Amino acid sequence: MRAEVVAVGTELLLGDIANTNAAHIGRALATVGVDCFIHTAVGDNTERIAEAIGTALARADAVIVTGGLGPTQDDVTREAIARLTGRPLRRDPAIVEHLRARFAELGREMAETNLRQADVPDGASVIEQTFGTAPGLIVPHGDGVIYALPGVPAEMEEMLARAVLPDMLGRSGEPATILSRVVRVAGMSESAVAERLSPTWDMLGGDVTMAFLAGGGEVRIRLTAKAPDGARVHELLDAGEAAVRQALGPSVVGTDADTLEVVIGKLLLARGWTLACAESLTGGALAGRIVSVAGSSEYFRGSIVAYATELKASLLGVPRAVLDEHGPVSAECARAMAAGARSRLGADVGLAVTGVAGPTEQGKPVGTVVLGVAGPAGATEREIRLPGDRNVVRALSTGAALNLLRLHLMEGVR
Amino acid sequence: MRAEVVAVGTELLLGDIANTNAAHIGRALATVGVDCFIHTAVGDNTERIAEAIGTALARADAVIVTGGLGPTQDDVTREAIARLTGRPLRRDPAIVEHLRARFAELGREMAETNLRQADVPDGASVIEQTFGTAPGLIVPHGDGVIYALPGVPAEMEEMLARAVLPDMLGRSGEPATILSRVVRVAGMSESAVAERLSPTWDMLGGDVTMAFLAGGGEVRIRLTAKAPDGARVHELLDAGEAAVRQALGPSVVGTDADTLEVVIGKLLLARGWTLACAESLTGGALAGRIVSVAGSSEYFRGSIVAYATELKASLLGVPRAVLDEHGPVSAECARAMAAGARSRLGADVGLAVTGVAGPTEQGKPVGTVVLGVAGPAGATEREIRLPGDRNVVRALSTGAALNLLRLHLMEGVR
Repeated sequence: MRAEVVAVGTELLLGDIANTNAAHIGRALATVGVDCFIHTAVGDNTERIAEAIGTALARADAVIVTGGLGPTQDDVTREAIARLTGRPLRRDPAIVEHLRARFAELGREMAETNLRQADVPDGASVIEQTFGTAPGLIVPHGDGVIYALPGVPAEMEEMLARAVLPDMLGRSGEPATILSRVVRVAGMSESAVAERLSPTWDMLGGDVTMAFLAGGGEVRIRLTAKAPDGARVHELLDAGEAAVRQALGPSVVGTDADTLEVVIGKLLLARGWTLACAESLTGGALAGRIVSVAGSSEYFRGSIVAYATELKASLLGVPRAVLDEHGPVSAECARAMAAGARSRLGADVGLAVTGVAGPTEQGKPVGTVVLGVAGPAGATEREIRLPGDRNVVRALSTGAALNLLRLHLMEGVR
Repeated sequence: MRAEVVAVGTELLLGDIANTNAAHIGRALATVGVDCFIHTAVGDNTERIAEAIGTALARADAVIVTGGLGPTQDDVTREAIARLTGRPLRRDPAIVEHLRARFAELGREMAETNLRQADVPDGASVIEQTFGTAPGLIVPHGDGVIYALPGVPAEMEEMLARAVLPDMLGRSGEPATILSRVVRVAGMSESAVAERLSPTWDMLGGDVTMAFLAGGGEVRIRLTAKAPDGARVHELLDAGEAAVRQALGPSVVGTDADTLEVVIGKLLLARGWTLACAESLTGGALAGRIVSVAGSSEYFRGSIVAYATELKASLLGVPRAVLDEHGPVSAECARAMAAGARSRLGADVGLAVTGVAGPTEQGKPVGTVVLGVAGPAGATEREIRLPGDRNVVRALSTGAALNLLRLHLMEGVR
């Protein structure tokens, strides 16, 4: 089975956005063992989209098209597929019905142009939309097949996993299984992880490959294994994961969906503890990561974003003497903020982050960040120096605070 | 002049990295007025790279290739160009000399494989390297030209600006300039914007093109104009922007870098007002958007993230009677939260958001969100229904709250 990706959108050609959809589809195809040798990006032009899909389909068994399915005049992927395949567009009454119901449900008036999303090439199958309004399409052509998906990443990713990959595997009948597992590591640089894993790499040989991806304050190690059957692939991945865990110890946060915030939630639930935050430079981003986990209301109380220094005193009870003597970016202040978050928000554990995001220094150099945790098992503070601009410092501070909390909770649970 | 981009690297196909090089080159080509209709990504395979470049060159006057020029065995762009053009590779003694000097300067031993970077297709010109070790290439072929650049973004960008664009413009002799301007719109759906702009579209004719991009609770309209000289392009864009503003009125937030949070900052500074937030379902994301603007500490006081319902009473002073009678997702609660943010955080303006992000309903259906603003100019609340999963609802709520604040501040400033 060989597939190609055609991403549609003039905004891709003009560089307004990077082609992250192609990257996502590439990852997904590799995971299920489908070869993909070419990605193409093309603008919102019927003729050129048709030509790009046709060229791709001449080289591959399947073409995944993303983008150009929306309601506006520049969304012309449907027309391009109709032209290429010679299948005229027919308005699907079920989709029209669905669109009207969807807009009614949201209490919004539907512009007539939305009905273009109900146009389906004759003989194509429809991939029902879960979130958005544009359905996807499965259009057989010659010996191959065209999958058309929306360009909105969340909609595209959901339809790809739910409908496209199963359909593609069903057509291929290829017996090899490739699976990947991501091991998440916090508190180490990419090069430190790579160096520590150098003997592991040799030990695993060719059975399991490792790829490193750093970003957002964590390092992700993607282990990939291929074998004729799924059971053997899982065995290989288990062995690889065990070897990585042995080499990296508690720096391993978890696998796949087990992000820092998910693991913290599990640790808090296991302990029966609640959490509250006190933030300054992160400006709510710390709480934002925590509430991104469904069910976080079971253990998360809330956060005080004390961006103005005097609010650290009035809202969190940081003693004015601490602010005067040590300043707002100090271990003493972080300790008092964590304690204040516990008491003011009625939580078992308080997590605090204060620091200098820039662009201007505030007593301490840009990138200076102090973290604090206080809970039933004791309190701890940590000062770190982070590289990067304002938004990078904020993102890295958030990750570092969550990791300090994780390590604190792991000790508490032991 | 028509160009195409061919990005080389198996890591692009596997989705380990997004094709940001193509985006950068696309932006650069648009700025100098060179048409670019297709981007291709291909893996580290000599035959397929040669084929991709050949296919692109059959459609375009120039092909910019990026990646595959490094020292390792999987860097085969040189070989691919040699094969396609029939120009044998010759080792360039000047580059060999440069490489040896470079490594000596860094005090590092040079592996022999580095000398592959000195291989140049017969008759090609060399683009000298400024940072890295791999030089770029300019290879004429038939009526067209191939530019080969390294894949490291900083090296690629430097060579593109210094050598490729000037060479390309020299060959084209076409004086056209293309420029784009983004108009940001909030509080309207993409289809509503498109419908409202339908007469504008016709009015502008072919001089200015419009493309729509929706996401993160806003619609971006990209206006693009092309003309022989820059002054005329700016005139066309000004006319296009004026037409869009006339059609959409106060829904227009601003242009280019003027996001909701930037515009709000300007309005607050103009009025000399400070801002504080009270959040529940957004969990800090509202404050996070506001502090992403450098200089926000001049007007932003902080935020109380009252995720647990009783904290709305204890931290924000929402009367218990309001919570009991109307519930935490009500206009009454939003009004009290906004007032509480003002008083408890000592701000002129309070912005509140409360609602149900899901997955579980809380008295009201998932997606129900109530926004409130309170300030010197009065108070207002607004209940909305948003589609999508937990994280989509949170992102859309944040955008809707910022937009309500913007409209409130615009009235206040009048």
